[in-house]
Amino acid sequence: MAGDGFDIERYLLEGKGFIEKALEQYLQKDERIRSALDQAVCYSVLNGGKRLRPILTVAAGELFGAKRSAVLPFACAIELIHCYSLIHDDLPAMDNDDFRRGKPSCHMQFGEAIALLAGDALLTEAFFIMTDPRATRLLAVPLSAKLIREVSNAAGIRGMIAGQSAEIELVKANVTPAALESLDRLKTGALITTAARVGALIGGARRNDLDRVTRYAQALGLAFQITDDMLDAHEAVGNDDNHKGMANYCRVMGPERAAERVQELLTDCLSAMQPYGDRAEALRALARYVALRTAVNESAGGEIIALDQQLLTVRA
Amino acid sequence: MAGDGFDIERYLLEGKGFIEKALEQYLQKDERIRSALDQAVCYSVLNGGKRLRPILTVAAGELFGAKRSAVLPFACAIELIHCYSLIHDDLPAMDNDDFRRGKPSCHMQFGEAIALLAGDALLTEAFFIMTDPRATRLLAVPLSAKLIREVSNAAGIRGMIAGQSAEIELVKANVTPAALESLDRLKTGALITTAARVGALIGGARRNDLDRVTRYAQALGLAFQITDDMLDAHEAVGNDDNHKGMANYCRVMGPERAAERVQELLTDCLSAMQPYGDRAEALRALARYVALRTAVNESAGGEIIALDQQLLTVRA
Repeated sequence: MAGDGFDIERYLLEGKGFIEKALEQYLQKDERIRSALDQAVCYSVLNGGKRLRPILTVAAGELFGAKRSAVLPFACAIELIHCYSLIHDDLPAMDNDDFRRGKPSCHMQFGEAIALLAGDALLTEAFFIMTDPRATRLLAVPLSAKLIREVSNAAGIRGMIAGQSAEIELVKANVTPAALESLDRLKTGALITTAARVGALIGGARRNDLDRVTRYAQALGLAFQITDDMLDAHEAVGNDDNHKGMANYCRVMGPERAAERVQELLTDCLSAMQPYGDRAEALRALARYVALRTAVNESAGGEIIALDQQLLTVRA
Repeated sequence: MAGDGFDIERYLLEGKGFIEKALEQYLQKDERIRSALDQAVCYSVLNGGKRLRPILTVAAGELFGAKRSAVLPFACAIELIHCYSLIHDDLPAMDNDDFRRGKPSCHMQFGEAIALLAGDALLTEAFFIMTDPRATRLLAVPLSAKLIREVSNAAGIRGMIAGQSAEIELVKANVTPAALESLDRLKTGALITTAARVGALIGGARRNDLDRVTRYAQALGLAFQITDDMLDAHEAVGNDDNHKGMANYCRVMGPERAAERVQELLTDCLSAMQPYGDRAEALRALARYVALRTAVNESAGGEIIALDQQLLTVRA
């Protein structure tokens, strides 16, 4: 159960490398980027993201012996869906964010109309990539439609989009921690959960295995959102004009309860993976990494959180 | 080849009836519409559209003996994609249309954020519906992924969205009829063409048949866009503050050449269907109907167009 033998930083770096190589191949087939739309799509995808979701898909697939070549198109498709959601989230009608990862957001760079269409294009392209015959050929035959159904369910009106719209309706109301959690289980959690489930399904995971992966990924998704909010709250001190209406765990729960909740969720992740022993070390290390983000931040001079360092042991 | 025995008005009305029944079932499964998002989705789909695309899918399927139950989910999915594209088109960042079919457009009714998300939700839901196990069970097994690939290709960055973005980039330039045609072959034509192809593929159309259906639907899609522009130009006399930057066939070609072009395209449609005799009478009548829209408008007191009435004979 100890994570000290596993180099998560290196694992993430390698994952980011082959995911981005695959994304580049999918997006720039003819290597002549001409239209503003093509430029906007590439600008918004090849922008230095962490690639957490596709790495999770690959890791969950590998736990059950899936070939990386079978998993990769689905991993990339899920990343495109994530990227489209960020473009649309940043639009003035939504969060109105001028910057994304330190660069002008898509609509600031290309205008609102092209940004809107670039998001639409990425969502559509995700399904095109999921039906790449090179990939579907590698799958057990009825699985292809099942996976697409899984992803479209998680990304749509019963999943991510339901969460986004609930957030819009929630902003002005009094938010409880429980309401915030169920919102985030949709907004962030649904796509992260489907990322892991798709990998496991491709690997041939059976019902029990799939239940464990689901439990792991639901806890991971929520831990990710809470640590994101903690980092946000930390960064936003004295600079809170953006997102001021948005619900944030730190504000709703207080930073200490938020840190406790992350720890509970990390325990959930680790215990869901317990039956797999060393085979699940990548998934366990990934969970520790997500939870540790805030602890690292704290040790760098912050004041917010005290996470149990024993749970979070990684090779420094 | 004469169309006088076929009651196209009745055919369209019946088609609209069963398409809308299926759309209602897909959209309102639990019959309690609660969130603004759910409301916006239903408002934008169940709004009196003509249902040309799904009717085309069913008609092309029936030409090759497809069961309606196998075609219907794909027909509905294509209509949802059409509806999402209208919601996003109407947004202030795009065409900025306050009205759609005489009612406030989605963002006027529900706000921009919910309208954006409703469009995203409909696009995603289209893929969910296409993987409905009740439908995929009826298909030859590798076909399901092939159809989804077909639709996502037509709706995305190589199809409809490429056309929309080309239109944005084109607005300020000098537009030639040829440039306008290739733009509209993407913007409107790609989805109409895929609507027909999907039906034919489900019916088991072979290569030659599929080529004919493609030729028919490409001509139909372009005829549809040109007659739309003709009707628009007709209605917009003295009321041209909207769409003033948009390219329009009447403006670019002149109304007489536009009418000639519709006639050429109708001839294309009819000749592509020639080998099928009476079995293709619905598709032929549909093409005449699309072309006749402008002629009917003219006979009602307009001045724009002279179409060959012999080609357009329908039961009055």
